[in-house]
Amino acid sequence: MKEASKAQIKLLRKLSQRKYRENEQLFIVEGERAVEQVLENGVIEVESIFVKENKTDSYKQTADCFILSKSIFHELSDTETPQGVIAVCKMPDPVTLEELQKLNSGVIVATDAIQDPGNLGTIIRTASWFGSEALLHGKGTVDVFNPKVVRSTAGATGVLPFISGDLDYLLGELETSGWNVLLLDGNPGAATITSIPKKEKTVLVVGNEANGVSASLITPKRRRTLIPSVRNSKVVESLNAAVALSIALWSVNN
Amino acid sequence: MKEASKAQIKLLRKLSQRKYRENEQLFIVEGERAVEQVLENGVIEVESIFVKENKTDSYKQTADCFILSKSIFHELSDTETPQGVIAVCKMPDPVTLEELQKLNSGVIVATDAIQDPGNLGTIIRTASWFGSEALLHGKGTVDVFNPKVVRSTAGATGVLPFISGDLDYLLGELETSGWNVLLLDGNPGAATITSIPKKEKTVLVVGNEANGVSASLITPKRRRTLIPSVRNSKVVESLNAAVALSIALWSVNN
Repeated sequence: MKEASKAQIKLLRKLSQRKYRENEQLFIVEGERAVEQVLENGVIEVESIFVKENKTDSYKQTADCFILSKSIFHELSDTETPQGVIAVCKMPDPVTLEELQKLNSGVIVATDAIQDPGNLGTIIRTASWFGSEALLHGKGTVDVFNPKVVRSTAGATGVLPFISGDLDYLLGELETSGWNVLLLDGNPGAATITSIPKKEKTVLVVGNEANGVSASLITPKRRRTLIPSVRNSKVVESLNAAVALSIALWSVNN
Repeated sequence: MKEASKAQIKLLRKLSQRKYRENEQLFIVEGERAVEQVLENGVIEVESIFVKENKTDSYKQTADCFILSKSIFHELSDTETPQGVIAVCKMPDPVTLEELQKLNSGVIVATDAIQDPGNLGTIIRTASWFGSEALLHGKGTVDVFNPKVVRSTAGATGVLPFISGDLDYLLGELETSGWNVLLLDGNPGAATITSIPKKEKTVLVVGNEANGVSASLITPKRRRTLIPSVRNSKVVESLNAAVALSIALWSVNN
């Protein structure tokens, strides 16, 4: 196994920043289990693997595997207790709006300004588990290829087609081709999720953790829905955003 | 507003450790929103509040409020970007097993070795939202009064009665008084959650993030249940533990 070159280390450093990830169309997966999942899945193309000098045994058989010194590894790692393996992966291509407009049924999940990487990763993981058709990531949403998001998806990164862009535009276009937009919104006037009739083509929108769905997305045509609390609504303000989305996804699927 | 004393600072330092939290029966809530929620809820008794020297304006009216220097505050803070307020709160008393045995209906949530503080906090938040009767925290579960857990509950800490202890014992005792134990377990042979008949008295057990429910808790009497995936089970290994529990709670409630 070869030592990583200076150019490779420089690239790894750059990939901690979104703009370089987008320029290079590459992203990082860190951690033994996460890298294993990506290799098993075969959904994401792995370009190269970097291991900490004392961890080389586990990856002997893997092609394009390079060694990093302990100090460099710890500098590059995004975790508090680095497990000693990083994979550089190719970003999958986004799907086009036209492809989604052609679909005859299914659920699409849209994230409007989800800011916590763990929440976004969990949303992607749950949406993949429930076989959603696609993910739409609105402009204020944390980057889906942020290393913390990737770790939280537990191997689901790249499983679903996705578009990152302006939700005002994307939702409007999907509506013109018969998609129904359902906004998760705990404010007064929203209908209980169980009272919402199930539709063939539903886009489920989850809003920002603190502020909910953006005002610009709330139109008279779009149903607002909530997951009602039992008893403790006075002392528990809300559900976690990823949990609310997960229950809503379960509810529209069952 | 007074400066915090040396004894107070010493106490704050100690409260980062579980054993001192248990000795003192005190815990820390950090962050503006979190402290606000605790003050609004009135569920938890706040003993004193500590603010960073440049943040004193917001807490002028609050009794028992003390000032910490910036450097001390940053040393004590559990967050990467401290918001400048910490509350020292009294731990609520655990409920007794006898009190739970007397209940005639409801759902109890049991956590068996949940290790991620964010997951445990989310589970407590969701269980509170859905009006569960109590929480049982098995021995391998992260401390419920860990500052990260407290932050993730979003104000739900202390809302539900709880017992921390040995789940083998607790579940066995509850069964003798007519509670039905339902294990969340994605392994083969588990029944789909929608196929499980709803019972009056259900204990829902969620297992460790990586290993699931402990082998010792799986008995012939206890039903095992899972949340089935749609399409992507080959590439997505599982749901997040807090999400699985949340969907199961929703399902047994609806």
